[in-house]
Amino acid sequence: MRLAIGQLNIQPGVPRENLKSALEFLKQAQEQGASLLTLPEMALPGYLLGDLWERPSFIKEVMMAQSELIAASSCGVTIAFGGLGLDPSRKGEDGRIRKYIAFYLAQNGQLVGPQNGPYAFSLKTLLPNYREFDDSRHFCDNRRLALEEHCPVEHLLSPHIIELEGQKISLGPMLCEDGWADDYNIKPSEILTQKGAQLLINLSSSPFTRGKNDKRDRVFGAQAKLHQAPLIYCNAVGLQNNGKTIYTFDGDSTIYNTKGVRCLQLPLFESQCRVVELENILCENVETPQNSIETIRQALHAGTSGFLKQINMDRVIIGASGGIDSAVVAALYADILPPDQLVLVNMPSRFNTATTKNAAADLARQLNCLYASVSIEESLKLTLQQLDGLSLNNHSGNQSHSLKLSGFVCENIQARDRSGRILAAIAAAFGGGFTCNANKSETCVGYSTLYGDHAGFLANIADLWKGQVYELAEHLNQRAGRELIPRSIIEVKPSAELSEQQNPELGQGDPFCYPYHDALFRSWVEDWNRKSPEEILESHMAGQLHQLLQIDNHIIEEHFKDRQSFILDLERWWKCYSGMGLAKRIQAPPILAISRRAFGFDHREAQCAVMFTQAYEKLKRQYLGA
Amino acid sequence: MRLAIGQLNIQPGVPRENLKSALEFLKQAQEQGASLLTLPEMALPGYLLGDLWERPSFIKEVMMAQSELIAASSCGVTIAFGGLGLDPSRKGEDGRIRKYIAFYLAQNGQLVGPQNGPYAFSLKTLLPNYREFDDSRHFCDNRRLALEEHCPVEHLLSPHIIELEGQKISLGPMLCEDGWADDYNIKPSEILTQKGAQLLINLSSSPFTRGKNDKRDRVFGAQAKLHQAPLIYCNAVGLQNNGKTIYTFDGDSTIYNTKGVRCLQLPLFESQCRVVELENILCENVETPQNSIETIRQALHAGTSGFLKQINMDRVIIGASGGIDSAVVAALYADILPPDQLVLVNMPSRFNTATTKNAAADLARQLNCLYASVSIEESLKLTLQQLDGLSLNNHSGNQSHSLKLSGFVCENIQARDRSGRILAAIAAAFGGGFTCNANKSETCVGYSTLYGDHAGFLANIADLWKGQVYELAEHLNQRAGRELIPRSIIEVKPSAELSEQQNPELGQGDPFCYPYHDALFRSWVEDWNRKSPEEILESHMAGQLHQLLQIDNHIIEEHFKDRQSFILDLERWWKCYSGMGLAKRIQAPPILAISRRAFGFDHREAQCAVMFTQAYEKLKRQYLGA
Repeated sequence: MRLAIGQLNIQPGVPRENLKSALEFLKQAQEQGASLLTLPEMALPGYLLGDLWERPSFIKEVMMAQSELIAASSCGVTIAFGGLGLDPSRKGEDGRIRKYIAFYLAQNGQLVGPQNGPYAFSLKTLLPNYREFDDSRHFCDNRRLALEEHCPVEHLLSPHIIELEGQKISLGPMLCEDGWADDYNIKPSEILTQKGAQLLINLSSSPFTRGKNDKRDRVFGAQAKLHQAPLIYCNAVGLQNNGKTIYTFDGDSTIYNTKGVRCLQLPLFESQCRVVELENILCENVETPQNSIETIRQALHAGTSGFLKQINMDRVIIGASGGIDSAVVAALYADILPPDQLVLVNMPSRFNTATTKNAAADLARQLNCLYASVSIEESLKLTLQQLDGLSLNNHSGNQSHSLKLSGFVCENIQARDRSGRILAAIAAAFGGGFTCNANKSETCVGYSTLYGDHAGFLANIADLWKGQVYELAEHLNQRAGRELIPRSIIEVKPSAELSEQQNPELGQGDPFCYPYHDALFRSWVEDWNRKSPEEILESHMAGQLHQLLQIDNHIIEEHFKDRQSFILDLERWWKCYSGMGLAKRIQAPPILAISRRAFGFDHREAQCAVMFTQAYEKLKRQYLGA
Repeated sequence: MRLAIGQLNIQPGVPRENLKSALEFLKQAQEQGASLLTLPEMALPGYLLGDLWERPSFIKEVMMAQSELIAASSCGVTIAFGGLGLDPSRKGEDGRIRKYIAFYLAQNGQLVGPQNGPYAFSLKTLLPNYREFDDSRHFCDNRRLALEEHCPVEHLLSPHIIELEGQKISLGPMLCEDGWADDYNIKPSEILTQKGAQLLINLSSSPFTRGKNDKRDRVFGAQAKLHQAPLIYCNAVGLQNNGKTIYTFDGDSTIYNTKGVRCLQLPLFESQCRVVELENILCENVETPQNSIETIRQALHAGTSGFLKQINMDRVIIGASGGIDSAVVAALYADILPPDQLVLVNMPSRFNTATTKNAAADLARQLNCLYASVSIEESLKLTLQQLDGLSLNNHSGNQSHSLKLSGFVCENIQARDRSGRILAAIAAAFGGGFTCNANKSETCVGYSTLYGDHAGFLANIADLWKGQVYELAEHLNQRAGRELIPRSIIEVKPSAELSEQQNPELGQGDPFCYPYHDALFRSWVEDWNRKSPEEILESHMAGQLHQLLQIDNHIIEEHFKDRQSFILDLERWWKCYSGMGLAKRIQAPPILAISRRAFGFDHREAQCAVMFTQAYEKLKRQYLGA
């Protein structure tokens, strides 16, 4: 069978544009003699759309586009595409029109339905409701329908039998999560192959997550092998979002043969319609070299450039402190924008050292982008003049308060002056946006200033721990074959340089011991069984914390001089993470997700009182011998 | 039967504190001779907790507290409480330990389970996954379990039979959404009463939404009447949140008798344990006088004061422009904080009129709170000096750009200077937070400046349309019996006063015709079938737009001088709503929800390209005769 895998770049919420891209793929498939074209899940509407599904005019627009695509199958190429399924005669559990995530098979301008089931399309059976997924919010599935129809789910799930190239073939319809059935008690691939499916087709809109493709190879490969049916995985590329969190879709469309190995791989993050002779490639074995940091770079590149396109922005302003985070952000943008559409701005005060000021200028030189230096010294002086000693009075005259601006207050004034005053104004005047350069470690504990360095139109490295930022910096230099990011930036002690006590030239700087704190924070956020001070202290007391955190023991031993300091540090950062850090994240810019747990819509958080469990309190008493 | 309804104030995420409150209620119930105490859904953990459910140490803490509560029932009072149900032998669909929203009945220190079912507790049958609800994200329900057990749902849902005051009674266990079954094909109250339940108990954690209690009277009353079983509705009070959106829980616990009417009502927004002789009150008929704007005021009061407590803040700074929004916000806070912990700051530039400057000072006088005036004139001058004409150059010297600060750019500089520089610094120095005074109309279309008037620690009137803000202002004055909010503030034309063209003394101001735009924006956000320009134009062309928007026709007719201006206005605001407005909402402060669709976690939004449907484009061509 001559098969076209359509790894479509989906523009969320714009059915007409996606229809155009799909028809372009259809043309390519036809020209190359394919008999079947596959397109991803929710190919025309897009998948992550928030509550756009509740807008009737959008639903109409989607259905019109889907009708056109179905009609286009009269060209002789059969189309298997993921889309929106509607049943106007029933309601969803939100009371609105019944919606399904549907698998459509269109041939000669008509739908070819499954063997059984009430509709001319197949339904997604497993709806994910974790991480960034909210499928049950808008959609009904085979399982709900089975309850309604008082029948087993198995009755509603069956292959589509179709003639392709003169031969009948039984196709097993699957949609994304249907292939990730490990935690469900229904296994769609098993049901479908038992019913005779010879070829499993999984249409997906699966966001990129570090390490996910390796897991998919295991999980999907095992299904193809177990059921002795090749499995076509057709994924989307592009960028979709949930407001707070931005996801890239990495494509990586694949065919798994009955040995359970990949026999085809489409490129990561690239729109492509690939035509293959299925029988010819089934015995191939495609190696998929993994270069973790390069894949992350690709995801960041695809996500950042995709987001710029999405919001129609082509000029970017970066506050360049001479530190590592802004340097990596600048290097990423320099790979996307022409140098005259990228501006680096250094904004020194008396606390900034020559080392970092020179490094910022040097970075701009390396990137050959636009550069300016704007001092915040005068503005800080003015603010102090206006506010330090300012008298707040009530009308009765019996209440009065004289403001006193402490050193800490002045630190934050500087940070806000840089972003809220200078960068925002330059961005507006230059017709662009300014970036948020926060990394995940800072974002986790709110080590940043709201409306200051926490601000920006996109936080594209806020899902990278500090250690990953350094790794990426080295990788970017290696890739460029030169010091794109000056060595001085990589070597200087990270510091906010907001006070005399934060002089990196004297080795002063941020209050983190990164290998330890990165690992500690990661255990709170990314660990499957998310850790809290209770597990950390318990493990530390058992001498196993280095194993739990997967770091060298000497890092922990050297960092803490005594038990008290271990506890102080742990409680300090836990309070920051679940207190002010959370409050700041609520107002953070959109974060580009690459990890298996990104802040925002993926890692959902409610502002609660900071809490230490009773078990922790008990351990602590024991540990401190109190 | 002597019954205690425990309308508990739940602190989300702090089981120990909630246990204390529950035990206090238990003591009251015991002292007053009650045989049964009801407590709300998820009484000890709290209900809206984000992904806290994924933290094992929290789960342990919850289970420990629940065990203590169960043990406490040995005091002779039986306790029906909502809580977390666990099954360590099974997994949830997220792969983590199986969790249920459970109905517990504890007597003599032991659980009394339902007649059927695998557990010593009952499960929630209907899990809401709309608006702010995400129940399926963390919890399994009776329906999933039925699929797993290959049995009808009905098998898993049955009454708890228990002896109270020497008599056997069959109690029907329901949890919140179980009573809102209209859009589901399973009706828990029907199943339970068919199985002999004599008394239905609905334990809820139901957030306040304007108009919801009236609907509940209809829906719950109808069930009690239809099944001839009294229905006890026990709801929580307090404040819970999803990060972006803050919800108040209004209590309003109720008993519906078999005539389907309320025979008891607990107060709104107040923690209370009410003991009643059930038989004695069943023939009562409690009128529930509705005063919509007063109920909204109560919700805002409860939400604002609850949030301050939640984040441990007791000093508040408000930028007082002399306009209506900041005045209403100030009046709300003045009702919560002592006047010496509330600061109003007026921050004039040359564009601010005497009218508004005087009004701001007058407002502070009325509230007798602290006040200061800080000019932004010099700072604006400094920013212009530094940035207007600033040269951006690259190192090669072949690229250069000279910045030009337009009038519009200067408007936003002023707004950011006020919030990001002055208010933020005063707040930090005064040890408090500054408020965001944005209303829903502005928030909808992003008529505000990011890091400027869009900033703050809480946006407590951002779920009120501009018309509602005025209504509330009048109500606050009426309630105070004096001009708490000076008349000049209510009468002045709303204006940002950021340029010479925005002089309210000359009748210039914001580009809204509020009765029309409030109604238009509301139809996009709050209408059940959410409108878009397609429906608006269609309705307008049919001469029915005033009906659709429920406003006087002359408002529309007078506002638009011709067809072109109608289209221009419609498209302008639609682009703002789905473009920059959305981008700004992503970084907005938490919003206190009162409507049936609040921005944030309730009205979820993805940043997509601004889209007009094909049907709209066609209508527009027709309308404009192009």
